[in-house]
Amino acid sequence: MKEEIEELWSEVRELSLGNSGRVERLESPPTSLQFLRNFINPNKPCIISNAITHWPALSSWTHPSYLSQTLSSSTVSLHLTPTGAADALAPHPSTSLCFASAHVQHVPFTDALNLISSSHPSKFVAYAQQQNDCFRSEYSSLAGDCDPHIGWATEAFGAQPEAVNLWIGTQQSQTSFHKDHYENLYAVVTGEKHFLLLPPTDVHRLYIRDYPAATYKYSWDTGEFDLELEKPTRYVPWCSVDPYPSRETLDDEISKFPLYFNGPRPFECTVKAGEVLYLPSMWFHHVRQGSDDGGLTIAVNYWYDMQFDIKYAYFNFLQSIHYRSPPSPLMHEKLSEEIDTGAEDDYDTR
Amino acid sequence: MKEEIEELWSEVRELSLGNSGRVERLESPPTSLQFLRNFINPNKPCIISNAITHWPALSSWTHPSYLSQTLSSSTVSLHLTPTGAADALAPHPSTSLCFASAHVQHVPFTDALNLISSSHPSKFVAYAQQQNDCFRSEYSSLAGDCDPHIGWATEAFGAQPEAVNLWIGTQQSQTSFHKDHYENLYAVVTGEKHFLLLPPTDVHRLYIRDYPAATYKYSWDTGEFDLELEKPTRYVPWCSVDPYPSRETLDDEISKFPLYFNGPRPFECTVKAGEVLYLPSMWFHHVRQGSDDGGLTIAVNYWYDMQFDIKYAYFNFLQSIHYRSPPSPLMHEKLSEEIDTGAEDDYDTR
Repeated sequence: MKEEIEELWSEVRELSLGNSGRVERLESPPTSLQFLRNFINPNKPCIISNAITHWPALSSWTHPSYLSQTLSSSTVSLHLTPTGAADALAPHPSTSLCFASAHVQHVPFTDALNLISSSHPSKFVAYAQQQNDCFRSEYSSLAGDCDPHIGWATEAFGAQPEAVNLWIGTQQSQTSFHKDHYENLYAVVTGEKHFLLLPPTDVHRLYIRDYPAATYKYSWDTGEFDLELEKPTRYVPWCSVDPYPSRETLDDEISKFPLYFNGPRPFECTVKAGEVLYLPSMWFHHVRQGSDDGGLTIAVNYWYDMQFDIKYAYFNFLQSIHYRSPPSPLMHEKLSEEIDTGAEDDYDTR
Repeated sequence: MKEEIEELWSEVRELSLGNSGRVERLESPPTSLQFLRNFINPNKPCIISNAITHWPALSSWTHPSYLSQTLSSSTVSLHLTPTGAADALAPHPSTSLCFASAHVQHVPFTDALNLISSSHPSKFVAYAQQQNDCFRSEYSSLAGDCDPHIGWATEAFGAQPEAVNLWIGTQQSQTSFHKDHYENLYAVVTGEKHFLLLPPTDVHRLYIRDYPAATYKYSWDTGEFDLELEKPTRYVPWCSVDPYPSRETLDDEISKFPLYFNGPRPFECTVKAGEVLYLPSMWFHHVRQGSDDGGLTIAVNYWYDMQFDIKYAYFNFLQSIHYRSPPSPLMHEKLSEEIDTGAEDDYDTR
């Protein structure tokens, strides 16, 4: 099965996505028909410039004072983590790795902004993000600064967004590799976002495994985090690959996840303030952010319902099969060679 | 691999196509956006009523005299076969089965029409069909009777049809299971067409195998056919399943092709005069035709270029794998049972 799956990685690039590792750029918004035909249908990302130039947010949100004033009476969900990695794998004393969610604190927006902006690397990293339609609830005072939906996308999908989320963070926060069951339009308002993207066909390369769920609990008294495993144990399937390992762990990570590190490079793009990324449903993505001045990166993303169609059925089929077939007598010799090279993986991704 | 592939057959029906075996019907043409979103993107067939009611062909082509007169100076490609099965498997003395193409005769249209209409079951079956854009070449005198393209489809696909073909035949002619690398809009003008349809996910159920190519040669002197194998031998991958075996061969066919006969029933539809079938790219289809009065069935089909995208890559991946994995020691007992029932197939469809 190894060769057939690797041929799939290669073919989807040769036929549709390209081999450059770059994401197609449009200088102006597509029509709904073009967007549907050229991007949604082939499940292909793109970056669109000049799609949100009319948003008041592009200028007003660069002033933290404007945000503080407009949201002065709002309470928001702030995510606190020790290192900026929320919804990510973390070591836990009683198990090797767990899936760690942030400590979520509801605080007045002005406090949230201070906690995000002020540097507490030794204490915690704060990130305002709550993927529950928060832009239309917690942040509703900002509604007039952005469009309530992306017109040409809404027309293409045939429905309003299911959720609109706001993200306010600094370069200290990042999001680990995962996929969403939504079509995503990601508009960056200030700062910039750096994405690594892998198509759904590459699912085996992320080594999705079940990890016990845990949640950080931050104590304002001691200034320390506890990482509490959920009881009863709940398992979350999550991508195992950290695409940016430290120099010390690099060799180890490569040997644990050879399909990621030795396979085709992920698609890589930076989405700047004023640009919109179309992140197709089921694409794996890893996100970092930053800005030249070390200031805030603020983004609004629109989640539209995806179609659970033949593409989704094919994905589930692919995910359900082993990266290689069980060895048959004839294959024994060949397999032994491959195992010696460390280039073999027999993990069932289900 | 058996279970994973069968789960795919089932899931694509549950999620997208439905389990009724019926093809969705639209009472009026969709907009290009609706067509793209609801049918092209999910690779899902539909039948559209009231889409070609304005075509003069709907009334004028019911009169053979009109056709004879309009095409009085045209020469057309007429396909002759012994039984009405062209581009189909046929027994050959020197090999078990071959892929047999029709004897193609270029004749004045009036002669063609006579040969199609008059019953020569003991001599040959004639079918006017040539899938080389014949409606815009051999039959260009009829151009004014139909639209040169299907407006909402052209808008959705973003390009004019690559080919437009005309088909004139009787119930004696049928087309064996196959797939095309085109998006297809099939407009029936007189009579009716009966389709059996299977989605691309079901590729293993058609037992695609390589057959040596052959061509019928009809002798007007002797009134007999020769079936000549191409030299040098050329192999054509073709579906092995005849969905309508005779009563005598039924049991044998079921035991040879259990995945077809014991799996989910194909989608079945009748497209009547004035209706249009959207037959998505890569769908397997078997076509019969007929009309209540035993007269002509005439259809025009528009082939639009398909997108070779992630769906196509997934299809090739699926087709490249065996229906079941090589047996592992643990599976031996289970497999033996299955082989005994005759419900197992180890054919590699490549």
